[in-house]
Amino acid sequence: MIASTPIQIERTTTPKPKPPQDKLGFGIYFTDHMFIMNYTAEFGWHRSRIVPYQPITLDPAAKVFHYGQTVFEGLKAYKTADGRVQLFRPDANMKRMNRSNDRMSMPPIPTELALEAIKGLAKIDQDWIPDGEGNSLYIRPFVIATEALLGVQPSLEYQFIVIMSPVGAYYPEGINPVKIFVESHYVRAMVGGVGEAKTAGNYAAGLKAQDAAKDQGYTQVLWLDGAEHKYIEEVGSMNVFFKIDGTVYTPALNGSILDGITRNSVIRLLKHWNVPVVERVLSIEEIYEAGKNGKLEESFGTGTAAVISPVGELNWRGEKLIINGGKTGQLSEKIYNDLTGIQYGKLEDPFGWMIEVH
Amino acid sequence: MIASTPIQIERTTTPKPKPPQDKLGFGIYFTDHMFIMNYTAEFGWHRSRIVPYQPITLDPAAKVFHYGQTVFEGLKAYKTADGRVQLFRPDANMKRMNRSNDRMSMPPIPTELALEAIKGLAKIDQDWIPDGEGNSLYIRPFVIATEALLGVQPSLEYQFIVIMSPVGAYYPEGINPVKIFVESHYVRAMVGGVGEAKTAGNYAAGLKAQDAAKDQGYTQVLWLDGAEHKYIEEVGSMNVFFKIDGTVYTPALNGSILDGITRNSVIRLLKHWNVPVVERVLSIEEIYEAGKNGKLEESFGTGTAAVISPVGELNWRGEKLIINGGKTGQLSEKIYNDLTGIQYGKLEDPFGWMIEVH
Repeated sequence: MIASTPIQIERTTTPKPKPPQDKLGFGIYFTDHMFIMNYTAEFGWHRSRIVPYQPITLDPAAKVFHYGQTVFEGLKAYKTADGRVQLFRPDANMKRMNRSNDRMSMPPIPTELALEAIKGLAKIDQDWIPDGEGNSLYIRPFVIATEALLGVQPSLEYQFIVIMSPVGAYYPEGINPVKIFVESHYVRAMVGGVGEAKTAGNYAAGLKAQDAAKDQGYTQVLWLDGAEHKYIEEVGSMNVFFKIDGTVYTPALNGSILDGITRNSVIRLLKHWNVPVVERVLSIEEIYEAGKNGKLEESFGTGTAAVISPVGELNWRGEKLIINGGKTGQLSEKIYNDLTGIQYGKLEDPFGWMIEVH
Repeated sequence: MIASTPIQIERTTTPKPKPPQDKLGFGIYFTDHMFIMNYTAEFGWHRSRIVPYQPITLDPAAKVFHYGQTVFEGLKAYKTADGRVQLFRPDANMKRMNRSNDRMSMPPIPTELALEAIKGLAKIDQDWIPDGEGNSLYIRPFVIATEALLGVQPSLEYQFIVIMSPVGAYYPEGINPVKIFVESHYVRAMVGGVGEAKTAGNYAAGLKAQDAAKDQGYTQVLWLDGAEHKYIEEVGSMNVFFKIDGTVYTPALNGSILDGITRNSVIRLLKHWNVPVVERVLSIEEIYEAGKNGKLEESFGTGTAAVISPVGELNWRGEKLIINGGKTGQLSEKIYNDLTGIQYGKLEDPFGWMIEVH
């Protein structure tokens, strides 16, 4: 099978200067190399290669521009104090990518092949993994439909590409609570749609609400369900958790919510600590109720970029709810410290989450 | 203002052979030239140019690949019997494009500028408009986000591109009814989402249901509303009409349905003829009810590609409903003949819809 041939490597002859550690931001700078692999209906996935980071050239009729067949993933490589390079649960990302591929009528990518690509690329550009507390190398695998044909049918040609960006600490001055606007007008996704797929269209669909929330001084929106605008889905591009009276709640996966890998890791960590955690349908009303009764102790979002993002305030139809006095809760902080501790190799990894790049 | 500078034209030195008239299909062949214009936050829309049809080159971090900010339009140029070239309601397309741009947090394109681009391109490649009954030149304007940045915010850079494809008659053997599967599981869009925007993600989201319907012998799916799976939205990528007891019904625009230009033209034509036409919420149940009572006389879809596509059969939860004995209805045929008659310049155009290209 052509797909199993080794990765061809073409090294750059003009390595770029690395950006200053304190100016990294998120997804602004890209490393010296990228991975590409092609798919055709005839040959399947083939021609896997690492090449110098470069523009891609597509026919203007390529389906990605017109019908949006695309999926992506996001994960990070970390450098440990003793100089090892490790990835956080890349196998989980590759499995999810294939669930997204399936939902978008796109061909699956053999998990081993995708993992090899990511490890190979992380290895060749490992000097790009920044030192410094909270810094890491963000890895962005994505698949795009490239067939040049305007018929509305699944593309017969694709490219799988991996690019990488050194990123700074999400909270340069330490983990800080955000203010969240509960969105009652716009809807991100609904059951029966593509909300659980990590596909480009879901993100474009959320921009207008996000901009409106920012105009009012909020960092992100909290999305409610599309049918009744009653039930909590997710926060911006993160999953969301609430600690009420000692128990941690998060919306159950229903097809319209992203099956977050940080979400899943937090649930496993909480169970490991014997903290009660419940996945179920959660209404915004009961969160406000708990807030008024003094039982809402903490809230936080989970995602690859921020890991844990405490929520200090909600605004639902003009009614503000301050959570934990607007401060980071103890449990939020403990989860953040433990998860990042595992990721940076400072703490033991009892779950076998970290995959070392040799 | 830079945007108002004239269009720069670079003609091809290697014109392509034209495809055979009987093998045109849809969106397979592209003409010799394309239009491109750039947008930056600093300069607005600028550098409008017609160049030889060619691949486009983008950074792999361009936002269109990751967050799906893109809108498109579709319209046609027709050649009349006496050799004139005319466009069908291009102003309506450009206005809709800007409504889509707004929903997707993308910058508007001055309508005059976009119309000039389309007319200029149609003129330079007018030899590509195929002769022959039902043939036309399909024009595909689209806008893509090109900024190379992985933050989830609206792009600060875009390209507006127009490509054109000579297309064949949708029904080479005359207008023929299609079989439609009523989709009860998957959902295309919902109120509060981006269903009324002509954006790539809406089309990718529909592919899986479409493929499942095709596997069962159906041409397209009929989408129901996302909240209750009860109310009719649209058919595949067309709007849908039902003639019941002498009155024509079509779902009212609600934000999740595309504001079709053919849909609007059909409504205006019906009013012109004094045929009662009603836009309102329509349940699939009442359509089946009307079918059982013998009051459902005709059904048809409307769109740029097919103009009118009669519906001969519905299948809802396994229950088949044959419409008008599976044959094309009289009114469907009359609308088709009159609309295409106006488009090809065979009939008078009482609405001022046709715009001639000089």
